[in-house]
Amino acid sequence: MASKLYVGIDVGGTSMKVGVCDEGGTLLHTFEGPTENDKGSERIMENMAMYARLVVEQMSGSWDDVQGVGVGVPGFLDIPNGVLISSPNLVLKNAPLKAYLTEKLDKEVRVNNDANVAALGEAWGGAGRGVSDCVMYTLGTGVGGGIIINDRLVVGHNAAAGELGHIAIVSDLEAIQCGCGKKGCLETVSSATGIIRMAKDAVARGDHTSLGAVENIAAKDVFDAAKAGDEAAARIVNRAAYYLGKSMSVVAVVVNPQRFIIGGGVSKAGDYLFNQIREVFFQYTPEGASKGVEIVPAELGNNAGVVGAAGLILRS
Amino acid sequence: MASKLYVGIDVGGTSMKVGVCDEGGTLLHTFEGPTENDKGSERIMENMAMYARLVVEQMSGSWDDVQGVGVGVPGFLDIPNGVLISSPNLVLKNAPLKAYLTEKLDKEVRVNNDANVAALGEAWGGAGRGVSDCVMYTLGTGVGGGIIINDRLVVGHNAAAGELGHIAIVSDLEAIQCGCGKKGCLETVSSATGIIRMAKDAVARGDHTSLGAVENIAAKDVFDAAKAGDEAAARIVNRAAYYLGKSMSVVAVVVNPQRFIIGGGVSKAGDYLFNQIREVFFQYTPEGASKGVEIVPAELGNNAGVVGAAGLILRS
Repeated sequence: MASKLYVGIDVGGTSMKVGVCDEGGTLLHTFEGPTENDKGSERIMENMAMYARLVVEQMSGSWDDVQGVGVGVPGFLDIPNGVLISSPNLVLKNAPLKAYLTEKLDKEVRVNNDANVAALGEAWGGAGRGVSDCVMYTLGTGVGGGIIINDRLVVGHNAAAGELGHIAIVSDLEAIQCGCGKKGCLETVSSATGIIRMAKDAVARGDHTSLGAVENIAAKDVFDAAKAGDEAAARIVNRAAYYLGKSMSVVAVVVNPQRFIIGGGVSKAGDYLFNQIREVFFQYTPEGASKGVEIVPAELGNNAGVVGAAGLILRS
Repeated sequence: MASKLYVGIDVGGTSMKVGVCDEGGTLLHTFEGPTENDKGSERIMENMAMYARLVVEQMSGSWDDVQGVGVGVPGFLDIPNGVLISSPNLVLKNAPLKAYLTEKLDKEVRVNNDANVAALGEAWGGAGRGVSDCVMYTLGTGVGGGIIINDRLVVGHNAAAGELGHIAIVSDLEAIQCGCGKKGCLETVSSATGIIRMAKDAVARGDHTSLGAVENIAAKDVFDAAKAGDEAAARIVNRAAYYLGKSMSVVAVVVNPQRFIIGGGVSKAGDYLFNQIREVFFQYTPEGASKGVEIVPAELGNNAGVVGAAGLILRS
């Protein structure tokens, strides 16, 4: 039994995952319970505290061995004070998570946003294990990210570090409006949403593609068609990969990580996607910033959040 | 008299600047002596040690108050071990600077490259004083840079972090070859060299510009012409500013610094250049990563290196 335990809470709109890690970032035990967002702010915070103690009890661990409790939440945060100012998925408003949990649990508590926490989880206990400098991309509905430098999560002045989906990488001629209000963001081409948009555009333009026969095109349909030899689909995947690789080349000369980790639904396309990204990355990146750099898939899946939350105590 | 002293050595091909800072990054005293590169490796290292003691003596400081000695050198380094592997300007090869100086001076010694050290100097004791997260651009013959996050210099996996001149920001259609071997690097348009190249191209193309009458066009000539109403020159400055601002927007979503500091010869163009950079930066950067962000000129000039070298002890 590990003698030092780190508890992580990954808060979602409907359920919370709570887990216990050892000091190497190995997940020892997890528990999942309802968030009860409909029962109000107080109940959500009570559940956090209750589940944190419960998950340690379930594994017959001693609360005395717990070194701290980390929380990952979606939303806009005052990170130093651990206050959740607002959240798209939770009723919590100006919720003093850190102060509340510190009092209830009598442990050090740290709070960060869910994207940063997932990146930290992969860096600490997943595909970045043993690597001090890594950058994570999460390719889902949008493109999220997180940066770990010298084994520490980078948060930035307004907690906006690692917003990799908003790298303005698309050239002006091809740039379209992003949900963030700006133009040319990586997310407009390399997220599932971007890939689906490009597929629908291709169909609407009358491009010769099997995607015309697909109802409700998903990103996976585009990858499947591309792998099966559909040229229009292959061009779309290539464009998504091109801008991902180019954005990584930019990140490489800024912070020079040893490893890029790619997770999220779109990353399941595997080597077909990864090899195209790698090719572009090494084409655009000077040797000093690319030598020995790896681009690898995430390993923890849905557990990245809970591991990263636990990691906040040691790595933020 | 400050009770804790930090000594910095900024090593150049012909002379070394040595300085003493207090723990707030204020430069208390400097001394400049010959490098004596022509007298060989041993002599260069002896000079470093001698000048370090001399600068403290000159200000009647006590060597006992020295907390450590930092060294900034141009070249390719093994930073953890403080070994200068090779340098474009110095005969030193595989020189164990850290081991040598630690023995001679009986203090903690840290070594880093000159671009990183200059950025750290501005961040610690210059235009970034009091700001934990800053990014420095140095606009000279090339475009150099350095990144300070959480008050610490970011070095990266291959010591290539902060190579901001090699952000591949120019769109493929307009990209030209960079000295690094890649295409589309920021340095190809926003360095003095890039600005001069664009000016010569404009003259060769027969653009209507007063620069046609200038022999040996310098970057300053282009700025002067632009400020005097020369439209071709203004377009060149605007292009250099555009790509600088766009590159900063990328850096902002990656590490979200509070302040960008711009130094080097080209930065002397002042607000005429800075205002154009600011306009592009705020146009391309989502509010989360741009709110409260400042773009300011460097303050320390040639002293940035010596201050940053001294800062390595506290900030690397």
